[in-house]
Amino acid sequence: MQENREIMKTKALFYHAGCPVCVAAEQNIAAALDPARYDVEIVHLGMDKHRVAEAERAGVKSVPALVLGGQAYHINFGASLDALR
Amino acid sequence: MQENREIMKTKALFYHAGCPVCVAAEQNIAAALDPARYDVEIVHLGMDKHRVAEAERAGVKSVPALVLGGQAYHINFGASLDALR
Repeated sequence: MQENREIMKTKALFYHAGCPVCVAAEQNIAAALDPARYDVEIVHLGMDKHRVAEAERAGVKSVPALVLGGQAYHINFGASLDALR
Repeated sequence: MQENREIMKTKALFYHAGCPVCVAAEQNIAAALDPARYDVEIVHLGMDKHRVAEAERAGVKSVPALVLGGQAYHINFGASLDALR
């Protein structure tokens, strides 16, 4: 079955807010993930403010953050989620 | 030339100290990096204390941390490097 040949990928969400710390982390870490296993979505919370609540539910407290397999990883520190509401 | 077929990989160093925060980050993030492009080395600073200075020179201030292309990324917070000397 041709349509089943694609391997099921894990969703990886990278939340940032456009600050220099976030952008540097985004470019290196999000791009370093294995594209064969991860489907990476970059979310700019400064522009997509309606997704702040979603990030918070995933355990994100500051950006930049990577949510991998449902677990939030805070990378360095750019801005608190509270600053983005 | 057969011996040049291997693509030059970027070195990725993952420093941790065996704490639960570090181990969870290690298993998810270090394993998520693209093995085709990154050569990942896991360094347990609690056991390899002689490498604390090397981590510090790379900009690591706390563990777990990932050094990717010479840039240090602190992931969540397990322990300060000072606690590992």
